[in-house]
Amino acid sequence: MPDDLLLSDPRPGQLLARGVCRHLLSLDFVTVEELVPERGLRVDVMALGPKGEVWIVECKSSRADFMSDGKWRGYLPYCDRYFWAVDEAFPVDLLPGETGLIVADAYDAEILRMAPEEKLAPARRKAMVARFARTAALRAQLARDPGLSLSGR
Amino acid sequence: MPDDLLLSDPRPGQLLARGVCRHLLSLDFVTVEELVPERGLRVDVMALGPKGEVWIVECKSSRADFMSDGKWRGYLPYCDRYFWAVDEAFPVDLLPGETGLIVADAYDAEILRMAPEEKLAPARRKAMVARFARTAALRAQLARDPGLSLSGR
Repeated sequence: MPDDLLLSDPRPGQLLARGVCRHLLSLDFVTVEELVPERGLRVDVMALGPKGEVWIVECKSSRADFMSDGKWRGYLPYCDRYFWAVDEAFPVDLLPGETGLIVADAYDAEILRMAPEEKLAPARRKAMVARFARTAALRAQLARDPGLSLSGR
Repeated sequence: MPDDLLLSDPRPGQLLARGVCRHLLSLDFVTVEELVPERGLRVDVMALGPKGEVWIVECKSSRADFMSDGKWRGYLPYCDRYFWAVDEAFPVDLLPGETGLIVADAYDAEILRMAPEEKLAPARRKAMVARFARTAALRAQLARDPGLSLSGR
């Protein structure tokens, strides 16, 4: 788990991610934060639905946070649906069309606009579910076994 | 996460599971403890390998623990390879052939006998990887967000 996820003083985007993950769980989607779909890419939230749906949610805490993100189009090939998650004060007109919109705070969230679906090819989906499974399991193992050595990984 | 996994005084089988999971990680297998492959079944350790291999490991801390287990054959259809994990003092002659053998303590483990491979059918493998992913992600979410409400689940 990245060290900054363990801080007692999380960044604003991480608080949004927490609310997003809580809401997604109420929809029966499980989540992993800070997932690396491929070297050089890192998504804020990857969610896995009850039918194997793969969603990606990028959490933006401010206009500056959004404007400095040049990578988001690179995430589209790794999900069936792509969402932004922002707080109530965010100027949503900035956000591009053809993406989903979630309004969140640290405690909950709501999907305001469903993202269009662009289904993953089976091989990519299988790879993403495996990546998700491995990331989640490693995080859970680190949580239950703090003495775990990750040397060499 | 089952409450007993959170106890500061884990059961002997759970200590073996910890050592097993540490060793499996050194082989690049990620793990989930206490996974439910299907209603009414619960395996001590499910491991997912780098090529999607699905292994199940049942941890037996004593002869009595082993003799009281009438369910293990029911786990075979859910994995490519099935192992027992026991401590050094365990009377291994009790264990059935055609299964793998791991000797473990709370800190590490070693595979003494590789289990024979009986490959899962693709649909079953896909279902098991999804189950693994969901269980691991939910445990990791509970660990990173202790305020998470699981009411209704």
